[in-house]
Formats: sequence, structure tokens, C-alpha cells
Amino acid sequence: MTDPRDVIAAKRDGRAIPEEDLDGFVRAYARGEIPDYQASAFLMAAYIRGMDTAEALALTRAMVASGETVELRGVTRPIVDKHSTGGVADSVTLVFAPLAAALGLAVAKLSGRGLGHTGGTLDKLESIPGLRTELEADAFVRQVEEVGCAVAAQTADLVPADKVLYALRDATATVSSVPLIAASVMSKKLAVPTHHVLLDGKAGSGAFMKTTREATDLAALCAEIGRGWGRAIRAAVTDMSQPLGEAIGNALDVAEAVEILSGARPGRLHDLVVTFATEAVAHFMGAGREEARTRVEGVLDSGQALASFARMVEAQGGDPRVTEDPWAVLPRAPVIRPILADRTGYLAAVEAEELGRASVDLGAGRHRKDDAIDPAAGIVFLPKIGDRLEAGMEIGVVHGRDEDAAGAAAGRVLAALAVSEEPVEAPRLVYGWHGAAP
Amino acid sequence: MTDPRDVIAAKRDGRAIPEEDLDGFVRAYARGEIPDYQASAFLMAAYIRGMDTAEALALTRAMVASGETVELRGVTRPIVDKHSTGGVADSVTLVFAPLAAALGLAVAKLSGRGLGHTGGTLDKLESIPGLRTELEADAFVRQVEEVGCAVAAQTADLVPADKVLYALRDATATVSSVPLIAASVMSKKLAVPTHHVLLDGKAGSGAFMKTTREATDLAALCAEIGRGWGRAIRAAVTDMSQPLGEAIGNALDVAEAVEILSGARPGRLHDLVVTFATEAVAHFMGAGREEARTRVEGVLDSGQALASFARMVEAQGGDPRVTEDPWAVLPRAPVIRPILADRTGYLAAVEAEELGRASVDLGAGRHRKDDAIDPAAGIVFLPKIGDRLEAGMEIGVVHGRDEDAAGAAAGRVLAALAVSEEPVEAPRLVYGWHGAAP
Repeated sequence: MTDPRDVIAAKRDGRAIPEEDLDGFVRAYARGEIPDYQASAFLMAAYIRGMDTAEALALTRAMVASGETVELRGVTRPIVDKHSTGGVADSVTLVFAPLAAALGLAVAKLSGRGLGHTGGTLDKLESIPGLRTELEADAFVRQVEEVGCAVAAQTADLVPADKVLYALRDATATVSSVPLIAASVMSKKLAVPTHHVLLDGKAGSGAFMKTTREATDLAALCAEIGRGWGRAIRAAVTDMSQPLGEAIGNALDVAEAVEILSGARPGRLHDLVVTFATEAVAHFMGAGREEARTRVEGVLDSGQALASFARMVEAQGGDPRVTEDPWAVLPRAPVIRPILADRTGYLAAVEAEELGRASVDLGAGRHRKDDAIDPAAGIVFLPKIGDRLEAGMEIGVVHGRDEDAAGAAAGRVLAALAVSEEPVEAPRLVYGWHGAAP
Repeated sequence: MTDPRDVIAAKRDGRAIPEEDLDGFVRAYARGEIPDYQASAFLMAAYIRGMDTAEALALTRAMVASGETVELRGVTRPIVDKHSTGGVADSVTLVFAPLAAALGLAVAKLSGRGLGHTGGTLDKLESIPGLRTELEADAFVRQVEEVGCAVAAQTADLVPADKVLYALRDATATVSSVPLIAASVMSKKLAVPTHHVLLDGKAGSGAFMKTTREATDLAALCAEIGRGWGRAIRAAVTDMSQPLGEAIGNALDVAEAVEILSGARPGRLHDLVVTFATEAVAHFMGAGREEARTRVEGVLDSGQALASFARMVEAQGGDPRVTEDPWAVLPRAPVIRPILADRTGYLAAVEAEELGRASVDLGAGRHRKDDAIDPAAGIVFLPKIGDRLEAGMEIGVVHGRDEDAAGAAAGRVLAALAVSEEPVEAPRLVYGWHGAAP
């Protein structure tokens, strides 16, 4: 193997690293043969100097090779993975999976647990009583083929290099690097042999990428890595300058997802799900864009998408009546209190990450990996940027364990808003798409 | 304490680090409270982004504070430390110490062992039978006051942060950074409370800094650090594009030093010692430059400098007759073979580092910290760049343990030379001076 110091020095000086050297370095690190202090020096050099597409692809390959890969043999539908880089009130996957299943696609989603200010799909689903996400590998594949969608906790030791590298990056101020994030995201996608990947690259106050520029760089690089690997990928840059949907919690998100699948809740979350599903049908099933959109709206209007959700919930042990009357099934918080606007004017900005953190503090998320979650807790925040607020009008609801916690959360929501006297334009929902079939 | 990640992130982004934050970071690392992987990420960021003078001074202060400092109370002479950044055939300290003592200055030199292609002053002195460099602290101070010079092995735990940081830099490709080197050099100088520092910053094929540009940056920054600390310092950039003196070994260097102290060996080593001694008298004793030079030449011509060397050798247990008839006292290698020029022309370049390594391989230096040294082994290399060589003329001598080793070394010396048909200009000896009294 090349001396690790030569690999570090090449990146330090901005020279190209031969693929086999980078591969050897990352695999040796994953095996514990290169110490953390050499890896962190490399990560800092990569953070500052950047990595080109070939290097990011080589890093991704080495990370995938560090672990197991999943078997999806026996699935005859086109399998698509939909992944978000993380946002607030971002329940796209929850709605997209059954919608895609109703369209004849298959969604095989292996998830980690939520951590930090963005919620996790597993936690949301588990707010449905009885629902299990710990599925055996063969049961998972069977469900993907028969129901068309399954969302399960990742059990195989996929991409162990990502876990150790992420922990090291977190400790060494090297997290927010586009190529390192791209390799982390794509290694976990590519270790699961789906046919297609839909990537939702979030940009704004509720995302890890605060600017559309960064998010665009990330989406474009992820698409390039997918192309280099040979995986069809479409990567969007979408708005996260405010919560996407209205619910920021777990049971609250499931209820919102059911309403969207029932066609009863228009808005930006609905629109983005339809956009992604249309993109999937157009790009991965070869339909024209108009036809794709018609088919997507058709399975929503006909109730087929909602029926797919019921089948998925039932297959995973949950109570399928959640699709008929969510609040007959889902847990309710003991305290539900309104959030009343304290100013009159146009909503100009929302610190979305702060709303996510307020919800975590209510119990809807985790501070640490082994924290328990309160499935009933959370926030519903109704207005979108550009909406007119009147002082005293109800702009949301807090669901909490007691009055103190709920009151504190309502105060934090109000403090996270900027209100303008002048009208404000609503931000775009989608900033752009990257990638194509390889 | 500030979160170490904030210190790392500031350097990563090229922002200024408040002195107290850098201080806390380095001291916590020296105490083992910050892991290697955070320190190496910081070092890489510092390597790439650089450090300004204030940061380098703060780093130096924190490194000094990590350990003990030496006591030199009771010395009434002005104490000067002369330090070289490391070169080949660089016996300046060996000659300078007794010369300065004869001039009324005091040299209190605490040294580490030589490692790599540059020799160490301790090893050279220890080639004199009986000479000890492990001196008790009070005996060391007494000798400095009475004899005017002492060269001893560093015993106190001076700058432990430098040891751990250097080992980490060596493993993470972050050695060759001007501010990191400057902090390492200056921390060890400032931990010994001399009044003055003379720094010899080497530049060229036999030095760690291969270019005068790098060596100038290093000398200038060291001078700034000295000024910021409040220590008088003069830092020179001098030529190391070829061996400075003629001897590359240990006993060989002592014999050469005795000849220079006797006034019997002109050349670049003699000239540089005189230059440094003149600088010391002019800057640290307030003499005019002409007068300073006259005094330096006076103590050489009168034999006072040689007598100081005899007193130092005797005080440290060595045989002072080495100053009268070196080879009656010093060990001789069993094989002594000439090096004959294999080409005719002008000496145009010397890979001085290769000559240093060839000498190490003969036994004159260490590959590893605990290697034993052969005091008799080494190389004498006579010509300087610009000199005319004739094929077959004797241009040096190898002193080795056997014919094979000596023959191999002679071959390496010849291979390390470039010879030109056109006349070649001799390089300058001193490129410049930096610093002033604070």
C-alpha cells in the first residue's frame, strides 16, 4: 500500500490522487489500519482543497466496499430510492413511497434513525401503533415486490466507513464539505442495488446546506457520482427556507401524509411529492412529462396511493385504519395549545432549523442516539413565506407533554419568524434538477 | 475552554484565532485532553492556511508553557544561544561556543540528539574520550559562568508539546510548514532564558528548507516571535547548497573545529563562525561592526578561543589535549580511503543531503533514536561549488569500518556531484539577516 502520508500530502498540495491510492487509504482506515489522526488530516486537506468528481467517486466506491451490500433479487418492478438530505416538516418519503408503489414502481427504503433537527421516516412510521420497521431481509424484499413499498431499519452493516468517517468529521470540523457529504450520501444509496435514485437536495434555513449554491454543488456532484457508478439518478435542489409541510413531529406527520394521499391537503409538501413522482414516472418509466403528471394525479384521485399506504402499514404490522381516521389510531399529546401570531404583516422569513429544534425539545426527536421519542409531540406551523398574518390569528398548534413545554415551544416559534410590512414573494419550490440516466 | 472544533474551524476558514483559544487548545493537547485526531486536523488547516505572527507567537507561548523552563541564575555574562536549523558539515556551534566565551559572552547550549542527515553537536563532542554531556543543572550553570560555555544534553522536560506535535506532524504530512517549524524552533529557544539568540536558518540541498525563500520566511518569522516574546534575536539565512565545512562525521568535525580555533583552516565554515561571532559582539555587546570583527579575529589569533575550548572539554571530563594534537586523542576509523574525482570540470552542484545520508550510513549518525554512533566514521569532502576538479584528483576521504562500506560511500559522494564545463560562480555564504533587539 502507498504510504498514507503520501496520500495526505497529495491532497494537502491539491495534487490528483490515483484512484487505487485513495481506495487503499479509505479501506485501510475502515479496517482500523490507518489511525484517526491520519484520516482527520486527510479530511481537513480534502475539506480545504476540495475533491474532483473522480476522487469523490473513488471515495464513494471505497466506502461502499468497506461493508456489505443489500440483496434485492426477486423484485420485478423498477426499484427507486428517494432520499432527502434532510429538512424540517419533510415527509416527502412517507407520501412518495405508497404513491410510487401505486404507479407501478417499487420503493425499497432502508433508513437510519433521525438525529438532530430533522425528523426520521422510521420514527414517523413507528408512531402508528404496532408498526415494525425491523424487517427480515427476505420479508423486506417480498413486501417490496408484493406491496410495492417497504420502509425498514437498516440492519446489514452497510458502509461502516461512513459511520466512522462521519464521527471523525463531526469531531474535527470537517462536516460541511460538499464532496465528503456527497460521498457519504451516495455510498449509502449505492450500497442498496435499486435501479434509480431520486435525490432531494435541500437548501435554506432548515437544511444542512444553507445556500442554493452549496445545495446545487452537492446535487450536481451526487448526480455525477451516480453516473460514474452506472446508477440512474435525478437530483433536485428544493427550498428549505421554511418548513416544507405543516407538521413537525411524528404522528402529526403521518396524519398529514394521509391527508395528502387522500387529496385533501394541497400545499408545498403535496406539490413536491407530485413533482418527484412525476419525475420518476417520466425518467424511470419512460413516460412523457404530461402523461406522467396525469398518471400521478390519477392514482392520488382514485385512492390507489392511499390504499398502497394502507397495505404497507398492514404488511409491517401497523393498524391500517390510520388511513381512514388517523386520530382514531395515532397517539395524542396531553396538551394541545394554539400558536397565535404576535404581529401583523407578511411572513418574510422562518428559522426553520429552530422550529425543528423546538420540536426535538418537545420530545419529537433525539438529542442523542439512544433517546426515546414521544410520537405524539410536535408542532404544526401553518403559514408560508409571503402569507399575510394578523396579530392574534392562529398560525399553528403545539402538541406537548405539559403546559410549560408547550408554552416554551410556542414562544420559540414566534421568535423564529420575521414579519414584514411590505408584501413578500414566496420562494420557489424547486431550484433545479441534475443528472440523467447513465 | 472553547470547543476544540471552533478553534479548528476558525483556522480551517482562515479566520483569526484569539490567543487564549489557541493557548487553551495547545495546552489541553499537551495534557492529553484533546485527541490526536483533532490536533492533526488543526495542524493540516494551519499547514494549508498558514498562521500570522500573532498566532505563531501564541502557539510558541503555549508550547513553552507546556513544560518546564531552565534556570540560568548566577550567570553574570550576557548569555547567547546559537542555533542552526540543521545542515551538513555544520559545526558552527562547536567553534562558536568557545569563541564567544573568549569574547566575554556566555553560551549555554542545551541540545537534543542528532537524527537524520544532519549531525548533532552532542554526538560530535562525545567523540572526545571521557567527555560527558549529561550535566547536573547546577554544574551546567557554574560551567557557563566560569568557562563561558557549556554544551549539555537537555534533561528537563522542556516543551513536551513539541515532542508530541512533531511526532504527529511527521505522521500526517504537516512537517514542512514555516509557522509550525518556527514555533517548534523558537519554543525550545525561549524555554531556556538566555539573553540573546543567534539563529542560523539554512537554505539549500542540505537543509530542510530547500529554497532561500522558505528559509527567509522562517528566519523572519522566528525573529518576529523573538521580538514578540521580548528576546533579542538575530536570524541569518545562510547557504546550505553544499556542505558548509569539510568534515561530515563526529571526531572529524572536532578535529576541523580545533583547526579553525587555531586559525589554521580558512574556508566557509571559518568565515561563517566569524560572521556570527561578529554579529553577536556588535548586536549583543554594543560594539561597532569593525571593532567587533577585530575583537573576534583577536581572540582567534591569540589562542584564547582555543584555550576556551580546552577548558570546556576539561570541565566536561574530556581530554583537553584534543586542542593540541587532535588525532592523538580522537578515535580513528580502521579504513581510510580517498575519494578521487571521476570527471574534469567545475563543481556546479552538490546534493548535500545525500552526503549527509552517506555519512549516517557509515555509522556517523542515527536512523533511529536509539542507534549507536561510530564516532570515528564519516566523510571529508574538500571542494566547494565553483572549484575546478581534475579527474583523478583527491577531493575527499572516507573513514569507515571496512572497505565495502567506505567504497560504497565514496561512490555515493561522486554520484551526488554535478560538474560543469563552464566556470561556476560560488554561492553567497549569507543571504540576509533578520530581527533586532526588541
